[in-house]
Amino acid sequence: MVSQAMVKDLEDLLGKENVFTSDADRQSYSFDSAVLPSVIPAIVLRPTTAEKLGECVKKLYDADIPMTVRGAGTNLSGGTIPDTEDSAVILTTALNRIIEINSNDLYAVVEPGVITAQFAAAVAKKGLFYPPDPGSQSVSTLGGNIAENAGGLRGLKYGVTKDYLMGIEFYDSTGALVKSGSRTVKCVTGYNLPGLMIQSEGTLGVISQAVMKLVPPPQATKALMAVFATMQDAGDAVAGIIAAHILPCTLEFLDNNTIVRVDDFTHAGLPRDAGAILLIEVDGHPAQVAEDAEAVEKVLKACKATAVHVPQTAEEKTKLWEARRQALPVLARSRPTTVLEDATVPRSQIPAMLKAINDIAAKYKVEVGTFGHAGDGNLHPTFLCDRRDKDEFKRVEDAVDEVFDVAIKLNGTLSGEHGIGTAKAKWMEKETSRGTIEYSRRLRKALDPKGLLNPTKMVDILK
Amino acid sequence: MVSQAMVKDLEDLLGKENVFTSDADRQSYSFDSAVLPSVIPAIVLRPTTAEKLGECVKKLYDADIPMTVRGAGTNLSGGTIPDTEDSAVILTTALNRIIEINSNDLYAVVEPGVITAQFAAAVAKKGLFYPPDPGSQSVSTLGGNIAENAGGLRGLKYGVTKDYLMGIEFYDSTGALVKSGSRTVKCVTGYNLPGLMIQSEGTLGVISQAVMKLVPPPQATKALMAVFATMQDAGDAVAGIIAAHILPCTLEFLDNNTIVRVDDFTHAGLPRDAGAILLIEVDGHPAQVAEDAEAVEKVLKACKATAVHVPQTAEEKTKLWEARRQALPVLARSRPTTVLEDATVPRSQIPAMLKAINDIAAKYKVEVGTFGHAGDGNLHPTFLCDRRDKDEFKRVEDAVDEVFDVAIKLNGTLSGEHGIGTAKAKWMEKETSRGTIEYSRRLRKALDPKGLLNPTKMVDILK
Repeated sequence: MVSQAMVKDLEDLLGKENVFTSDADRQSYSFDSAVLPSVIPAIVLRPTTAEKLGECVKKLYDADIPMTVRGAGTNLSGGTIPDTEDSAVILTTALNRIIEINSNDLYAVVEPGVITAQFAAAVAKKGLFYPPDPGSQSVSTLGGNIAENAGGLRGLKYGVTKDYLMGIEFYDSTGALVKSGSRTVKCVTGYNLPGLMIQSEGTLGVISQAVMKLVPPPQATKALMAVFATMQDAGDAVAGIIAAHILPCTLEFLDNNTIVRVDDFTHAGLPRDAGAILLIEVDGHPAQVAEDAEAVEKVLKACKATAVHVPQTAEEKTKLWEARRQALPVLARSRPTTVLEDATVPRSQIPAMLKAINDIAAKYKVEVGTFGHAGDGNLHPTFLCDRRDKDEFKRVEDAVDEVFDVAIKLNGTLSGEHGIGTAKAKWMEKETSRGTIEYSRRLRKALDPKGLLNPTKMVDILK
Repeated sequence: MVSQAMVKDLEDLLGKENVFTSDADRQSYSFDSAVLPSVIPAIVLRPTTAEKLGECVKKLYDADIPMTVRGAGTNLSGGTIPDTEDSAVILTTALNRIIEINSNDLYAVVEPGVITAQFAAAVAKKGLFYPPDPGSQSVSTLGGNIAENAGGLRGLKYGVTKDYLMGIEFYDSTGALVKSGSRTVKCVTGYNLPGLMIQSEGTLGVISQAVMKLVPPPQATKALMAVFATMQDAGDAVAGIIAAHILPCTLEFLDNNTIVRVDDFTHAGLPRDAGAILLIEVDGHPAQVAEDAEAVEKVLKACKATAVHVPQTAEEKTKLWEARRQALPVLARSRPTTVLEDATVPRSQIPAMLKAINDIAAKYKVEVGTFGHAGDGNLHPTFLCDRRDKDEFKRVEDAVDEVFDVAIKLNGTLSGEHGIGTAKAKWMEKETSRGTIEYSRRLRKALDPKGLLNPTKMVDILK
């Protein structure tokens, strides 16, 4: 329980302006972007330095208060919904300093509250490149990106947040400082704790600092939009591009439902009668880009693309990519409830997965819009429904269940980039093993013996 | 204690030909490539299937027998030396199947005993590329590479083993099967256990299978050798290449002592009066390679290279690279004891680190030969001495101590790729924190409650 004395104590530590206890404030941090019931926390804290963050964790530990750390709350699996009404939410938004961008050694040192897109822009100013670009990049934080191992549109060629985390500092559940990893490309000093902390959803420690890898930017890029009569043709084109060993930096898919709804909203001039479109970008040395673009066009045509459109200006390209980024918000506004999934399969299995999604939607008579990162096998089948309609919602849940089954059967995974949280915890064993759940639980209990760090997430430590 | 009944039981499980108890056999597995006292195990086991490996672990767990898993035993920090004379050594050499090379989806599934260079060759045959190339690649195994997070000559551009491990299956200390990761680029289903298992030195589980990422091979490569009058000029050239944002795939350094000794042995025609040489390789699209090679040459000349030599044939290049690979064995044979270190610094700090190594060697009056992966900041200062000369060996130990201090002061790490094992455990806290050691110990105790998995390595679980 958060006592009045404790509130006072936290106010002394953090300053009154960084401790929130009003109903309205607590309400604001009771939900995130997942379709899950909200839980109002007892208190919301906003430490302004790493040291204060550590002291804050220690005080909560001593008082047995569960903690949920929150950046922008954009995650889609419930990872930032408080566990109980006794919980404290710790905001990282005031820990938002870029401490160093080292352009000789190609790394940056950041605090967890730095906003992803602002970081990428600061890095670009120094002539470097930070590739991970999750859909929520304009508001999401790097700490959240690390906790969820955020992906984005460039996964195929550039990987995900995991591939850019070199070093980490965090407080364990007791408030002790842990450091691991390095500013060097190679480091094997002790366990790979950056690798353990990535995608751990706030359950193993509270991140206070991270070292992120940077890369030289590509010299050139070229974008293409390909139009297909059917989803299957588009799926075949994805498999064909991969089989030709071309690695585009972006290879995105939108089905007809998504195209029409996005075009209604953005007036981007998308081909409304297309079965599907692919948005493709290749990058690298100019000569490489020219060759890759030519090779991609060849595959597109062989796979029955009805048109291949090359944006002629930067604005035109931005408009197309923005249209893609609008897919989720636009679908989300079309019906009261949006169930967005991110089952992921090996890239060659995209045609099979697309077919399965549509067959499943038909079988359960539910509406689906599918878009996503086809190039890395990470589709986002988005079921549009109304949660209050119990029958419809049950059919959506059954459909999602079956989508996961198919993904696993195709050697894929039930979550590519959205995380487990509380939303997908019940499916974890299906993909892994009983041993994996037990191993994870033991690991977790040892590192958080009181069960205070986001306790009900991923593998529920309270059970 | 390994009882006679237990030997019989293990023979029934594995076959007599895979259970070794003779003095000569046990002696063979009492040491590895580190300069550390040997420990003769009680028994040596060679399971031939993943299932038998799991049963083997379970039997050893039930009988409280400590286990050290061993591939080729090439590690340099004592990770494969048995912990006690009651230990079992588990050989992975019969688990050496490449289960799948998937050239559409760019991954391979392997057993832990597959030899690194044989794997790379099998992958190359399919038109793909597996970049990690540790010095011991011709005999080292992928399981060992994972356990130690092996590096090699291509770290700068292509990363290390960690960057290629997508999924893993392993048995925990009780023999339960754990699975994590995927065949997909994106996977956030549960904790990132591949990331935890990498560089865990056999202390968290026994690997039975791994999914390794593959990449399309570069279309072209170009190699150069640059000769310098002084080590400092060579160091400046390394920093200059990095600052110009060129990422060579290889950027290797040899000092004069190493050059002379290697040339004596290999007759590779190295410039024996050079202060240092750099071996450089750029790769990628032919146009990129041409531009990068030109840009590299410009930096080399600006940094006072006295000559830049471009091998004209593949044989000539192979000869140079082979000479580099001979550096360690050749230095090792020049004095009775070789203390090879792998302190690593951010790449721009290479000039400062080179100067420090030579100053330290002079201060302690010890002989050093320095070579290594300058491009990723991973130098191998190699102290040549005679362990039986206590005074000299003490001076070497003091010099090593000081090398680590300097590396950490320069924002580096005490081990880039050789691991902690028992050799470097005492220095770990200096680089990390008390909290890190405690966190690691708690994690480990939870996952190996009986303390049977390589118990004295990294953070000694028996203490």
